[in-house]
Amino acid sequence: MTLYRIGSHKISCFRTSASRIYPLLHVLELENQQQNRQYGGSKNQGGGYFNRVVMMRLFGTLGIGLLAHQVYTAKSGDKDSLDYQVFRGKSVWENLKEDHRIENLARNAPKKAQKSVPSEKREDLPTYTLEEVLQHTTMEKRIWVTYGQGVYDITDFIPQHPGGSEKISMAAGSSVEPFWMLYGVHKNPNVLAILEKYRIGNLSPAEAAEATANMEDPYARDPIRHPALKPSSKKPFNAEPPPTLLTESFVTPVDLFYVRNHLPVPEISENDYKLEIHFQGKDYSFSLDDLKTKFEQVTVTATVMCAGNRRGEMTEIKPVKGLNWGHAAIGNATWSGPRLSDILRYIGVKENDPSIQHIQFEGLDHDVSNVPYGASIPFNKAIDPKGDVVLAYEMNGEVLSKDHGFPIRAVVPGTVGARNVKWLGRIIVSDVESDSHWQQNDYKGFNPSVDWDTVDFSKSPAIQELPVISAICSPDSGSVVKLNSNSSLNMKGYAWSGGGRRIVRVDVTADSGKTWHSANITAQDSSKEPHHWGWSLWSIDLPIPQGVREVELWAKAVDSAYNTQPETFANIWNLRGVLGNAYHRIRVQVAS
Amino acid sequence: MTLYRIGSHKISCFRTSASRIYPLLHVLELENQQQNRQYGGSKNQGGGYFNRVVMMRLFGTLGIGLLAHQVYTAKSGDKDSLDYQVFRGKSVWENLKEDHRIENLARNAPKKAQKSVPSEKREDLPTYTLEEVLQHTTMEKRIWVTYGQGVYDITDFIPQHPGGSEKISMAAGSSVEPFWMLYGVHKNPNVLAILEKYRIGNLSPAEAAEATANMEDPYARDPIRHPALKPSSKKPFNAEPPPTLLTESFVTPVDLFYVRNHLPVPEISENDYKLEIHFQGKDYSFSLDDLKTKFEQVTVTATVMCAGNRRGEMTEIKPVKGLNWGHAAIGNATWSGPRLSDILRYIGVKENDPSIQHIQFEGLDHDVSNVPYGASIPFNKAIDPKGDVVLAYEMNGEVLSKDHGFPIRAVVPGTVGARNVKWLGRIIVSDVESDSHWQQNDYKGFNPSVDWDTVDFSKSPAIQELPVISAICSPDSGSVVKLNSNSSLNMKGYAWSGGGRRIVRVDVTADSGKTWHSANITAQDSSKEPHHWGWSLWSIDLPIPQGVREVELWAKAVDSAYNTQPETFANIWNLRGVLGNAYHRIRVQVAS
Repeated sequence: MTLYRIGSHKISCFRTSASRIYPLLHVLELENQQQNRQYGGSKNQGGGYFNRVVMMRLFGTLGIGLLAHQVYTAKSGDKDSLDYQVFRGKSVWENLKEDHRIENLARNAPKKAQKSVPSEKREDLPTYTLEEVLQHTTMEKRIWVTYGQGVYDITDFIPQHPGGSEKISMAAGSSVEPFWMLYGVHKNPNVLAILEKYRIGNLSPAEAAEATANMEDPYARDPIRHPALKPSSKKPFNAEPPPTLLTESFVTPVDLFYVRNHLPVPEISENDYKLEIHFQGKDYSFSLDDLKTKFEQVTVTATVMCAGNRRGEMTEIKPVKGLNWGHAAIGNATWSGPRLSDILRYIGVKENDPSIQHIQFEGLDHDVSNVPYGASIPFNKAIDPKGDVVLAYEMNGEVLSKDHGFPIRAVVPGTVGARNVKWLGRIIVSDVESDSHWQQNDYKGFNPSVDWDTVDFSKSPAIQELPVISAICSPDSGSVVKLNSNSSLNMKGYAWSGGGRRIVRVDVTADSGKTWHSANITAQDSSKEPHHWGWSLWSIDLPIPQGVREVELWAKAVDSAYNTQPETFANIWNLRGVLGNAYHRIRVQVAS
Repeated sequence: MTLYRIGSHKISCFRTSASRIYPLLHVLELENQQQNRQYGGSKNQGGGYFNRVVMMRLFGTLGIGLLAHQVYTAKSGDKDSLDYQVFRGKSVWENLKEDHRIENLARNAPKKAQKSVPSEKREDLPTYTLEEVLQHTTMEKRIWVTYGQGVYDITDFIPQHPGGSEKISMAAGSSVEPFWMLYGVHKNPNVLAILEKYRIGNLSPAEAAEATANMEDPYARDPIRHPALKPSSKKPFNAEPPPTLLTESFVTPVDLFYVRNHLPVPEISENDYKLEIHFQGKDYSFSLDDLKTKFEQVTVTATVMCAGNRRGEMTEIKPVKGLNWGHAAIGNATWSGPRLSDILRYIGVKENDPSIQHIQFEGLDHDVSNVPYGASIPFNKAIDPKGDVVLAYEMNGEVLSKDHGFPIRAVVPGTVGARNVKWLGRIIVSDVESDSHWQQNDYKGFNPSVDWDTVDFSKSPAIQELPVISAICSPDSGSVVKLNSNSSLNMKGYAWSGGGRRIVRVDVTADSGKTWHSANITAQDSSKEPHHWGWSLWSIDLPIPQGVREVELWAKAVDSAYNTQPETFANIWNLRGVLGNAYHRIRVQVAS
């Protein structure tokens, strides 16, 4: 169902189905600190993302008002701000139906955030009961919603609502708060100010409390995390460990392994769990016990890395859209379970079936529209026993943790984290890629001159194998270091390459490349390329000329295909901030 | 048999067997224009290499004299010269037996090249007959050789002769000219001047003619080549086409396909041809007819590239050892024949046999010691039917040409040209790599700070898969170009990546990366990564600002693992000048 065309890459979301609003919303997430400040987001770590997500989710439940507001801000505000970059394009505006109407609304929107009032009574407006509000759930009767003690008639949003009438009906006649809650509790003045424009009345304090009495934070059941994990977003939870901990062990401890969640962690009962597989019109179902007993169980050492690892460095060139990852959104673990290739063969999939091109994965995590997280991998990777794709129920020999996909996660060695689908609920044997937002319109690379006006996601392949990367984990950037007695500086780090390519060399320099030193590979598993899935840890005592007080350290790795890293981020910059594998460069002070 | 230890990476050659002198000589090849000038090499294209090869081959037949001379030159000469770099290391000299004696000889060597005289009579010396010369073939009777009208007592070279007495005995009592001929006819004044030091007499002009009457140029039977091929060396023949011809067709015409020969092209009769395969102590033999009829015949589109492609650009940073290739030492062809994996299975090789790690290839081309060209590939590449290793007897649908390996060549898609062994004579199923010079001590990568003193070839893996590369084939660097009517400049080129990775993007810029434009991929075959072996051709009409008179054009490619090229040669420079895949940068003038 095509409701609106908002820019080329957003069309597909709408075209696919009306229930696919979530992917659109995800596209529209605006994430950078500048924008966070602009909207008055909280300053605690992760709060920026949180507030931004909340704002975006409003589109799905409350209509186009926020969009209108953002456009207004964009048109009147700082042209360098991220939100402006997202919305300024003609392709966005010229294709948006009824754009004039929206712009008119926008012009009436408040220019600045006002004091939050929806939770308070407005003396100039009548008071309604929840019973009365509940009568207003159709266009004919007008659509009412509540927030705090406020009652709102949002009927005028319905025609422009990107998700259609099905979507808006979720909140019709009741409080918007449970829907907003999915993306975290919020107190964003801008959002509330827009809502307040549609205020028609009050609820009594008692009824306001009743409206949200059963409201639960969808993240309330998220697991407790290790305090060392540093979140880039709390709801959904995304966090990485301090880089110095990464080189402490070849296998990253589960509790310190970076977490990348797109949605709340689903609650799954081991006994009720079923993996569904759809193949040639039939559905096959496997219990956890089936997966543990019907197939050979293997253990694979594989590194998993987020496509956005090191995005923070890329952002220094120019802002990008995405979580502000450091260089620890990567970890190495052992993963145990049956091979996907065995399971596929078990249900009759043939390796050379030309009608099969992709294996789609769906997680059991889902958005308000019940759209699950989804991704796909090429069939040849999935069906090849040497591709080592495992449906893992153990990580580092322990039962898979909630954050890492309990009870089953797809581990696709050598492939970007986004395809290693957690809480795996469904596999679809298909001739096409997953149509999920994350496969089609998110994790892809573009040249540095492609911006949000010109991007065409259909022109670029979904990231699968990742390129060669390395990082310095110790010393910390900006730290003061003490040299060894021989005037050398101990450096440690990791290096990895996708596609099963082994790291064959890590070079470091303290003089901007005048002199390169090859580091010692201190940990590497013995599997051979092109089936070498784990990272390599490295260390070197790098000679530092006496008297030097500040030094810039660079690291680059070379893999078994002799691919090496690009020198700088300038020429690999891309609007989504993925694939950030330039030389890692840090500056440290030398203690006298 | 260990005769001498000349530096760490040269030991292995000697250790292996006394008959392995050739690999050593190959290591010692000195190739750069500076050195060429120093030795008075001819200035015609390819002549530099030619002369250098000749000098080096002298070691194998005439003894250590030349080496001594070179050391002398190195010690007295320019410390930046390439030959100095090769010989200056303590590792070379401290390990060379009887080095003092050699150095003494060296001190007596002429400082500068003298007028060539060996072909002329010396009035101060007696005249001998060929019969008399022939008596001098043992240490006891002294070892005599002839060159032109000169007779030489080279006995003093025998103890230091790197190849041992077996080697020197090849020339004892006769002319050195047939041996020198293997590497081409020569008139190098330096070489001849050293030889002249050992002059003891004359031959009559008639006998001098008789001595070489049956002498044949080992390259005399090399095929006639297309005149468009531009040689970087004539004997052995190494040549590339003009880059602009590469983009004319997706499949490179056989006659324009770059040629990389290490030795003379062998004469092979189709009827006598046998492919020998050694496996578990047994030898298997296949006729050409067997290979054509006993196995499924397949056709694979694969690009083959020399590891030294684009070496000329790397040399601009700092001299390297190797042929001075431009950017056309690459071609794309269709190759037809049986799969190696099928043949291996036919003789009983099992895919999961842990005792098999490498498949070694030996060519039917060989040096004076009968040592064949050799290389090996990982077993997992060879045994995987999807690895598409083919024993090709057809190239582009035609019988394989002499220069490209008639009657059978190993085509190892995605893998450096050096492993695509031509004139394939023998396959060895093994637990170890080929011990050939080209596998152990030649085609490997190192960091830019590794020089000939510090290099340890055992520390680096033999190049197999090649990294992503691209080049601008049109316009030519330095040319004057005419813009299109819309002020755009048409650019064309190729891009390719090893390991079966497809090219997904080629970016070009005319303003040093301020603005990148993605080119159109104009030709690419449909096979999917990671089994995409062919190159991609690309084209773009690149906007050029009006009024610009000179422009620098850059190209870089991105492959399906999102690996991209390093920006410059500075940080990927290596002493052998291989793996030169930095951005391709050319300057052109814009016609007014």
